[in-house]
Amino acid sequence: MRKTMRKEHDLLGELDVPADAYYGIHTVRAMQNFKLTGVPIHKELIAALVVIKKAAALTNISIGALDSQKGEAIVTACDEILFGALQNQFVVDSLQGGAGTSANMNVNEVIANKAIEQLGGQKGDYTLIHPLDHVNLHQSTNDVFPTAVRIAAIRLLKPVTEAIADLQTALQEKEEEFSHVIKSGRTQLQDAVPVTLGQEFGAWAQAISRDRWRLYKAEERLRQVNIGGTAVGTGLNAPRAYIFTMIEKLRDLTGISLARTDYMMDPTQNCDVFVEVSGLLKTAAVNLSKIANDLRLLSSGPYTGIGEIVLPAVQAGSSIMPGKINPVIPEAVNQVAFQIIANDSAITLAAMSGQLELNAFLPVIAKNLFESLDLLKNVLPLFSHRCIDGIKANHQVCRENLENSTVMLTALTPILGYDKGTEAALIFKATGTPIKQIILDNNWLTATELDEILKPERLTAPNKKGK
Amino acid sequence: MRKTMRKEHDLLGELDVPADAYYGIHTVRAMQNFKLTGVPIHKELIAALVVIKKAAALTNISIGALDSQKGEAIVTACDEILFGALQNQFVVDSLQGGAGTSANMNVNEVIANKAIEQLGGQKGDYTLIHPLDHVNLHQSTNDVFPTAVRIAAIRLLKPVTEAIADLQTALQEKEEEFSHVIKSGRTQLQDAVPVTLGQEFGAWAQAISRDRWRLYKAEERLRQVNIGGTAVGTGLNAPRAYIFTMIEKLRDLTGISLARTDYMMDPTQNCDVFVEVSGLLKTAAVNLSKIANDLRLLSSGPYTGIGEIVLPAVQAGSSIMPGKINPVIPEAVNQVAFQIIANDSAITLAAMSGQLELNAFLPVIAKNLFESLDLLKNVLPLFSHRCIDGIKANHQVCRENLENSTVMLTALTPILGYDKGTEAALIFKATGTPIKQIILDNNWLTATELDEILKPERLTAPNKKGK
Amino acid sequence: MRKTMRKEHDLLGELDVPADAYYGIHTVRAMQNFKLTGVPIHKELIAALVVIKKAAALTNISIGALDSQKGEAIVTACDEILFGALQNQFVVDSLQGGAGTSANMNVNEVIANKAIEQLGGQKGDYTLIHPLDHVNLHQSTNDVFPTAVRIAAIRLLKPVTEAIADLQTALQEKEEEFSHVIKSGRTQLQDAVPVTLGQEFGAWAQAISRDRWRLYKAEERLRQVNIGGTAVGTGLNAPRAYIFTMIEKLRDLTGISLARTDYMMDPTQNCDVFVEVSGLLKTAAVNLSKIANDLRLLSSGPYTGIGEIVLPAVQAGSSIMPGKINPVIPEAVNQVAFQIIANDSAITLAAMSGQLELNAFLPVIAKNLFESLDLLKNVLPLFSHRCIDGIKANHQVCRENLENSTVMLTALTPILGYDKGTEAALIFKATGTPIKQIILDNNWLTATELDEILKPERLTAPNKKGK
Amino acid sequence: MRKTMRKEHDLLGELDVPADAYYGIHTVRAMQNFKLTGVPIHKELIAALVVIKKAAALTNISIGALDSQKGEAIVTACDEILFGALQNQFVVDSLQGGAGTSANMNVNEVIANKAIEQLGGQKGDYTLIHPLDHVNLHQSTNDVFPTAVRIAAIRLLKPVTEAIADLQTALQEKEEEFSHVIKSGRTQLQDAVPVTLGQEFGAWAQAISRDRWRLYKAEERLRQVNIGGTAVGTGLNAPRAYIFTMIEKLRDLTGISLARTDYMMDPTQNCDVFVEVSGLLKTAAVNLSKIANDLRLLSSGPYTGIGEIVLPAVQAGSSIMPGKINPVIPEAVNQVAFQIIANDSAITLAAMSGQLELNAFLPVIAKNLFESLDLLKNVLPLFSHRCIDGIKANHQVCRENLENSTVMLTALTPILGYDKGTEAALIFKATGTPIKQIILDNNWLTATELDEILKPERLTAPNKKGK
Repeated sequence: MRKTMRKEHDLLGELDVPADAYYGIHTVRAMQNFKLTGVPIHKELIAALVVIKKAAALTNISIGALDSQKGEAIVTACDEILFGALQNQFVVDSLQGGAGTSANMNVNEVIANKAIEQLGGQKGDYTLIHPLDHVNLHQSTNDVFPTAVRIAAIRLLKPVTEAIADLQTALQEKEEEFSHVIKSGRTQLQDAVPVTLGQEFGAWAQAISRDRWRLYKAEERLRQVNIGGTAVGTGLNAPRAYIFTMIEKLRDLTGISLARTDYMMDPTQNCDVFVEVSGLLKTAAVNLSKIANDLRLLSSGPYTGIGEIVLPAVQAGSSIMPGKINPVIPEAVNQVAFQIIANDSAITLAAMSGQLELNAFLPVIAKNLFESLDLLKNVLPLFSHRCIDGIKANHQVCRENLENSTVMLTALTPILGYDKGTEAALIFKATGTPIKQIILDNNWLTATELDEILKPERLTAPNKKGK
Repeated sequence: MRKTMRKEHDLLGELDVPADAYYGIHTVRAMQNFKLTGVPIHKELIAALVVIKKAAALTNISIGALDSQKGEAIVTACDEILFGALQNQFVVDSLQGGAGTSANMNVNEVIANKAIEQLGGQKGDYTLIHPLDHVNLHQSTNDVFPTAVRIAAIRLLKPVTEAIADLQTALQEKEEEFSHVIKSGRTQLQDAVPVTLGQEFGAWAQAISRDRWRLYKAEERLRQVNIGGTAVGTGLNAPRAYIFTMIEKLRDLTGISLARTDYMMDPTQNCDVFVEVSGLLKTAAVNLSKIANDLRLLSSGPYTGIGEIVLPAVQAGSSIMPGKINPVIPEAVNQVAFQIIANDSAITLAAMSGQLELNAFLPVIAKNLFESLDLLKNVLPLFSHRCIDGIKANHQVCRENLENSTVMLTALTPILGYDKGTEAALIFKATGTPIKQIILDNNWLTATELDEILKPERLTAPNKKGK
Repeated sequence: MRKTMRKEHDLLGELDVPADAYYGIHTVRAMQNFKLTGVPIHKELIAALVVIKKAAALTNISIGALDSQKGEAIVTACDEILFGALQNQFVVDSLQGGAGTSANMNVNEVIANKAIEQLGGQKGDYTLIHPLDHVNLHQSTNDVFPTAVRIAAIRLLKPVTEAIADLQTALQEKEEEFSHVIKSGRTQLQDAVPVTLGQEFGAWAQAISRDRWRLYKAEERLRQVNIGGTAVGTGLNAPRAYIFTMIEKLRDLTGISLARTDYMMDPTQNCDVFVEVSGLLKTAAVNLSKIANDLRLLSSGPYTGIGEIVLPAVQAGSSIMPGKINPVIPEAVNQVAFQIIANDSAITLAAMSGQLELNAFLPVIAKNLFESLDLLKNVLPLFSHRCIDGIKANHQVCRENLENSTVMLTALTPILGYDKGTEAALIFKATGTPIKQIILDNNWLTATELDEILKPERLTAPNKKGK
Repeated sequence: MRKTMRKEHDLLGELDVPADAYYGIHTVRAMQNFKLTGVPIHKELIAALVVIKKAAALTNISIGALDSQKGEAIVTACDEILFGALQNQFVVDSLQGGAGTSANMNVNEVIANKAIEQLGGQKGDYTLIHPLDHVNLHQSTNDVFPTAVRIAAIRLLKPVTEAIADLQTALQEKEEEFSHVIKSGRTQLQDAVPVTLGQEFGAWAQAISRDRWRLYKAEERLRQVNIGGTAVGTGLNAPRAYIFTMIEKLRDLTGISLARTDYMMDPTQNCDVFVEVSGLLKTAAVNLSKIANDLRLLSSGPYTGIGEIVLPAVQAGSSIMPGKINPVIPEAVNQVAFQIIANDSAITLAAMSGQLELNAFLPVIAKNLFESLDLLKNVLPLFSHRCIDGIKANHQVCRENLENSTVMLTALTPILGYDKGTEAALIFKATGTPIKQIILDNNWLTATELDEILKPERLTAPNKKGK
């Protein structure tokens, strides 16, 4: 059965639009032009665009630029969408040419047609509510879209910030729990000096605490918006009253401390803020990857690896090796980290490729930034609660590793000197005689001296108590 | 209403599975563990996994390792899925820890339950058909998944290869069409020497022709598979007859000239082939980006830029600037290129992070490789047919640019010497007097000599005819 | 003639060392092991290592751990090196395995031998001053090297921060100078709406002002050091008094507000701070690249491009095209930006690859971070003073571009409505009739209305004065 | 004392040049403009430029375009430089704006002045030999520089190709040497199934064999040159006879099978070939990094890690931990790999940023490509001969790991079924009872059956012999 169609026209001519579609001709053209990822623009970006439209309608009513009947119809349409309606009408691809014009027009058209219906009209009868003359009034894609991307990013940041704080807590709980598990420390994967397992979790927690602070800062970077700047940031065609009221309305509606930048041409064309923020996400990815790597190393084995910790089993590990449990959550974390680092690359490329008054590549920046944020939001709770929380120390392995190695030797170097230390290491290597015994056999130290020097607390936190 | 559930159990215990689900407990665990992208594994990867299962069942029947009733039920289940059934049952996330185990198990379970039904059983009654003992018989995720990724990649490459050939044709048609449009050539964005517009399309076509050849080569790289290698590539538990028959069945069923590698431990752990192939896609992205940039430059304006060509209008360009037409297709191409370059980064990171007998990060490699291939498949026809095909030369601008500049001056340097050339350029700069006139005024050449030297054909293809 | 040699020995045996060399056996082995870049470690890194050695000697004297005669000889040796002596004795490659051990040992050995000479001894007579027992006393490569990298980075940052401030000033001077040059603004390289040339410089200056602030913040990130942490950050073998005095001495000697981190295991193993700082440098690179691109676009031509500005000529542009002047400084800026972005990638890879108690890849992080800082330090003054300072506006081109285009049309949209705007654009396109004339011909506005609306100040800063 | 100077002039005016300098005014300007890396252009690039100049002089003499006395003076000057003279006269920075113009002019000027002296003239007297009119005759930077970069890259590739073949051999010798050392295989760092240590080296050798082939192919990619194309590839001003003779001379002088491309505009502007070649180097880097990681893992410990192999000791490992030997060579390999991957990023960025008839960013491509090649050339022999060659198996650890684990269990799965396998694994985990014993205790298999199934050869190469 042929779908019923209505006609719409634009600069390029006439086109069929599905009669029941809330979107219009600009959206249809965009659907034809940008069959790229098959994934529509992010829900948070739609919400941010709609909230801007609502703020603009309220502003335009308040300054007398928009008939209040029309304006209220627009506001109601926005509210319904924000409440969840018509989500399937936002159909333009997340990757699109045109600097976000198609995303903006898709939103303009859906709101217009919804508002038209509110006023008793038929979809497509833009004499009642026009997507550009009314919904987009005093706006340009070039101020709307960059502002919307920032709002959406801030909203996506929030759960990430909470999840990273949560991870820090999870790590610190283990720091406490394992504070008495003495074990071999390793540098360059070689036996080094004693540490506690708790200290290892503590060192990770420190790195994550910096990420927490970074993400907090990232939000600040995103709050400066160019709404009111219109096409190139000069504010051409936007009344002064509109510009000043608009930012206030937007602040109210979003609950975010947005600020209109003094120099609106700047965020219209410069995307360095996204590079900075993505760089911070990448830094978090680096830390996450390092922690995941370490967890996989420490839990390796269980019998032929390091095996000092046991990760919680979250699924059977192999389709062929019975009983095998794999570190699948850390592996997921690693892969998320790879993806975020890669996404940073796309963001960097796009940001540096802006030209003159506009960066036309903001859609790909948004796609990658949002994916990075979503991945962090999703993977962090899995990491904290399906992995870190359930980690157990393998006390026996930790203890045996420490005793059957030269790891304690470094503590003796300042007393013995480097050269005797070297000699002891060579003897151990050749004979397997425990280090303590070698020291005693050579009369380098007495048993009492040795015991004092090798007290566990002293080994792993020697300076807490002075000497 | 509470969903009806059935119980299943695995190594970790018992779990509820939706009664109507074809997937089983391993899939349910994976769904809980990997809520990451929200996007399930790629359809082509599912298809590749299923075709491997079918080949394995046929092979196992033929070597007497699988009861033929069970085997045929498996084959039938596979066929139905390949024909389009049960697509919504493949629910594990495209990003997953576990080296693909969850993807493999999702497929094993869906096929098993479908086959169980075929045999008149109830979903979950794995005594009839067991996901591991029967569907996965003689396989491991570690040979199945890498083989499936290669098969899927080859299938996704095909339309890309065709589309790139198509782009080459589109460019070459314009090379021909514009072979007589003489214009200014530019180096470092500065006026240089004359070229034809056709030559510019020709130079792009040359680059694309290399990409075409590279993509052709890329397929060759992917054909070596490790099916039969099982867990680490030693083929443990896979009978010799199975190994030899399996690759033949797979070749038959896929129509791809797959080859079993001699050293199956190699593709089980090494992912360099994906880096190589992704590097070739990245190279194509570089060329596409360069062409897109040039098209945007040459069509810039239309009035205050270079404006030597006109891109076809595919949508209205601005929500605020009437009549503005933007180069949205090249902009989409640029963004696709950024994404492919970024994806290459993820693939590189994952490939270099493999450890010992396995690369656990193949899922993120697959995700990025498939996205790059899909993006190319999608953007190339848009580029060829919504942009290149419709490009028109702006003859007037091309001619005026050439005449009102020093672009023709270089042709005179060998006759005049560099120093007089410099002098002429300085006079033109100061006075705007056309170069020809300056030459004549200074009696450096006669009018006849000048005309001969400056003949258009000679300027842009001086060596075609000798001297 | 055979070089005279002396014998030295270490854990691995005996080796010849050139008799006149201040370095010793560990350095010789490192020279054999790491013939990689051919470039020795950075001068600032040597200086930072030496200043740490001096601080350690002073500290060890003050706490009674080091004989003051020996200690003072070490201090004197350090001072001479810091004053410029023996630079050719630091010969280990900037890229090296071993987490910086070879760099540390090279410094330990040179200082020891210099100090030995001070005490009247022969080079190699380590009974007088031992590279490890005395020069390296209470230190480990693993606290010395990360601390030194931070100190060197901070010192390299200073001139960069000044140079970026300088660039901001240079841009703002042009913002002022060109504040009355009205011209075409361009979005997506297409004619958009009017701006002033000054505004374009102003928008760039805004981005650079953020970089300035970022670089300032970058220094803060680097000030937390792990000196005193020894091998893994537990401070094993370092007396409490040493740890507390050492940081103070180091602060005094460097004049940098260094702080000893509370959790010394953290900076021993985590390199996220370098990723963060490099991310900020990358962000600056993105802005620089964008500005350089825009300058190359705006100065393109001079006759067949945009040509609205003229860059200062700093060298002849072509070996074949007389009179050609190329934008070589912006091109250098672009390339520096590419390099910094690439270096960030190396830093990210190395930082994420740290394992357990140490990141063994700090040498490659240092190499890339220092190259990025040096490149910025070098290129920024060239950009400011060999390019930006000398830029001239091409007033005629700016004016003509504005008048012979539809750029002013957007200003009329809110009065005319989008549809009439579109119609005007189409007429202009078809006939070339100036926009003003079209408006008048159609009686859409009166001449007086038009003049008021199109007043230049109103076009480029409409909201400064209200409406 | 003031340095004696001579005056030279160019398009921009007059300038002092050191009287004893062979370079001239263009070089002096470039030195002022590009104080960037402090590192001059690569020796191989100088050599390649000089060989082109020599070929051009010979060609120009042969076609009668250059006075033979002048021409021979140029040839002699080139020969002396190629033999090693005047290397300190090539002073322009490796990073430079201007698409290589400064490098080309530096070479032109040095050759001219050397040739002038040969003819009895004074440096700077360009009436005798002119850097442009004679040395650069029929050339442009835009064909000379891209051709020279390709020649230099091919020459740098040769030792890399040999060194990678050498590495393959080194790995294969170990494959043979360790072919009977049975050990635990690991997937996802978890105990998996048995392999031989030899097989592990064999799998690495396979990857390296692909790299070998890739590098061989890389050379082919680089052989197509645009010499004769002059400014934009149209060959403007280059006589037909010159173009055809030139490539032959160049082939003769270099001994490389260079080919003049049919479409000379293509390599003048397109740099995709460098991206492709760098992508292949990056692929090698990925393999090297993976091998280095695995070696560091397998040699970890020696007492508290995996410790199945022992790397040769090449230097003392720690300034504080006596007897510590670190895997410094693999660590160097990792860092080289990071650098090559990062360099690939710079090359990609530069290649995609070419515009219209030229890629102005070839200098940064050359810098990064040459660094990658040099690093490979340097690190590969260190890896082969200071690491791989000296690796020893720790037979005892290999054996013990295998016996005290569930690694052999998978071999039993097809006989026992997955569920019993799982049960056995759980019992082993709980009790530590060896797997064999569990099987016997449960009467799942007889001792004879077990022995047959678990024969070592069968475990690691089950399919070599059939079943």
